Amino acid sequence: MYARGLRRRKAMFGEADVEQRMAAAGEFGAPLQNIINAYVYGDVWERSGLSGDIRSLVMLGITAASGKPAEFRVHAKGALANGCTKEQVQDVLLLVAMYCGVPAAIETNRIAAEIFGEASASDPAA
Amino acid sequence: MYARGLRRRKAMFGEADVEQRMAAAGEFGAPLQNIINAYVYGDVWERSGLSGDIRSLVMLGITAASGKPAEFRVHAKGALANGCTKEQVQDVLLLVAMYCGVPAAIETNRIAAEIFGEASASDPAA
Amino acid sequence: MYARGLRRRKAMFGEADVEQRMAAAGEFGAPLQNIINAYVYGDVWERSGLSGDIRSLVMLGITAASGKPAEFRVHAKGALANGCTKEQVQDVLLLVAMYCGVPAAIETNRIAAEIFGEASASDPAA
Amino acid sequence: MYARGLRRRKAMFGEADVEQRMAAAGEFGAPLQNIINAYVYGDVWERSGLSGDIRSLVMLGITAASGKPAEFRVHAKGALANGCTKEQVQDVLLLVAMYCGVPAAIETNRIAAEIFGEASASDPAA
Amino acid sequence: MYARGLRRRKAMFGEADVEQRMAAAGEFGAPLQNIINAYVYGDVWERSGLSGDIRSLVMLGITAASGKPAEFRVHAKGALANGCTKEQVQDVLLLVAMYCGVPAAIETNRIAAEIFGEASASDPAA
Amino acid sequence: MYARGLRRRKAMFGEADVEQRMAAAGEFGAPLQNIINAYVYGDVWERSGLSGDIRSLVMLGITAASGKPAEFRVHAKGALANGCTKEQVQDVLLLVAMYCGVPAAIETNRIAAEIFGEASASDPAA
Repeated sequence: MYARGLRRRKAMFGEADVEQRMAAAGEFGAPLQNIINAYVYGDVWERSGLSGDIRSLVMLGITAASGKPAEFRVHAKGALANGCTKEQVQDVLLLVAMYCGVPAAIETNRIAAEIFGEASASDPAA
Repeated sequence: MYARGLRRRKAMFGEADVEQRMAAAGEFGAPLQNIINAYVYGDVWERSGLSGDIRSLVMLGITAASGKPAEFRVHAKGALANGCTKEQVQDVLLLVAMYCGVPAAIETNRIAAEIFGEASASDPAA
Repeated sequence: MYARGLRRRKAMFGEADVEQRMAAAGEFGAPLQNIINAYVYGDVWERSGLSGDIRSLVMLGITAASGKPAEFRVHAKGALANGCTKEQVQDVLLLVAMYCGVPAAIETNRIAAEIFGEASASDPAA
Repeated sequence: MYARGLRRRKAMFGEADVEQRMAAAGEFGAPLQNIINAYVYGDVWERSGLSGDIRSLVMLGITAASGKPAEFRVHAKGALANGCTKEQVQDVLLLVAMYCGVPAAIETNRIAAEIFGEASASDPAA
Repeated sequence: MYARGLRRRKAMFGEADVEQRMAAAGEFGAPLQNIINAYVYGDVWERSGLSGDIRSLVMLGITAASGKPAEFRVHAKGALANGCTKEQVQDVLLLVAMYCGVPAAIETNRIAAEIFGEASASDPAA
Repeated sequence: MYARGLRRRKAMFGEADVEQRMAAAGEFGAPLQNIINAYVYGDVWERSGLSGDIRSLVMLGITAASGKPAEFRVHAKGALANGCTKEQVQDVLLLVAMYCGVPAAIETNRIAAEIFGEASASDPAA
């Protein structure tokens, strides 16, 4: 499962990025990287119930709702690689705004705007 | 927007259910019902970026991730009405397990099992 | 601080209620009751920066935002005792709806409607 | 509602700040800005149940309790514009400390100290 | 890992309890039960870095801090089976009170008091 | 309690660090520093139910689970001072991964790797 998951991570997020992250985690982070590679990407992401684009849209909702903007950024790049459109991501974030509150949508909207191709910079709040 | 949103809610969750909820909310809850009917269902749910089934799957991820099982139950029923399959919902909940932790998945798995057609009863934890 | 805080709790929530809670907490809960009586009510609630009604409105926002409906119920009763009006509580919950999402507002709206004098019953969701 | 809400935002947070944020959000963020301007500031903030200063104090409690320090910063500036005092904000944050835990109070105390006129810098933790 | 994890769960929480939970989860919940048995109990709980009693005390802190009282109850029983003392659990909950706020400590204190041998009943709040 | 708690903080986190934080908090933060010094470190941390190393491991679980990485960093330094081992901290973070989700473990693993002696740098996500 570990090898299969690592291949999927590299295909989705880019080989250089993933290798840099794993090197940075070092020996201390090796057991956690095993969970991520083998169980998360090697098992759960391999299931056939959801297509890649739908899975990515659900991930954007989950990471925005749980207040994890750094992880949202990773999966916004994955969503682009999996073929999600700008309109789909906008609509996910409007659900986040109404069901988790506008602050959760503001911080992730800024990230998504960077990755989905416009809006230079910062939309901190208000 | 209010009338349009109310029609959508009734189509998705059932007329009797929605009318009972709105009666129960009473005069005190009227301003909140206006936000729900007009802004949430009359505006955000009317957008065309996401199809009904994908929107429902994202909603299951969002409500599970934000720790709102009562709202998850409502949207699990909506997911069934919008044509989501058992396999899709299972896969959403495995993402929840890995990205939000198993307790969030356990409490929503029990609800989804009730609504998606098997498993009689309670799967409290462990 | 303990005696002063306990007096304040009884004045705000009712003597019988507070005594029943403290008896139920038993010996196991005594150190936590000390924190609640001495530090929370005997110190923080005794400060003069906020009047009682404003303090109660802030408490409703805090407990709704942090997803603690049982504690919201206690402080909704305290808000009534401290002279807050129905219109004030409605407006706090609409801020909760927009800044924390509608599920957080739905679960607390149902409780507030019971305590602020109308709406018999349940407004579970949607 | 959109025009009215935008006027209120500019009055409370400053015209230059709001225009910079909206420009940064770009086309991608336009639907979210519509929710913020029309529904949040053009509707909910226009209600008469709460005066401006009380509304700001509740907002500080809500944004601190829900772990959104960037949004807390925006509303701390709004609280200053709406006439809240240093003593009021201190007391809100002590409620946050006791009801949401000291880490939530530490990160927002640092921000509030900057805005309410003293404390140069960083109070990270402990 | 699945068989090993299932053995551990049964040893810690009781055979009848675990079998009842797994039966209740049904076919729908089988993939989630696989994660729980194989990855959580068959891998992570088998690691040697923490003794059983320390692991249980950390679990009580984690489940209380993340607002999952049903899961806290399961692990409070596990803590008793793993030899934790009443004084240890009390001290964990006082840390929860100060670092996550008193509401999180109140709801879990009530559960722990039931399991750690006194206090009949309910300590809802205040 | 204040003087006793301040001594403990300085012993655990270093005198220079604590003095710098308290100076930075200024007059505005003085009431919050009183809660931290007197109630948290002067009372709760003085209790005898937990040894220093176990208390630190529980604190790492609590601060990781509640999404407070800045506070996690402070207590990771405290855990080192209290004699916790790298293997213990790794195992706490694997529990966090499975019970709170991998994003919570990723952000705290990066911090712990810095403090517990290896891994140069950044392990942002994926």
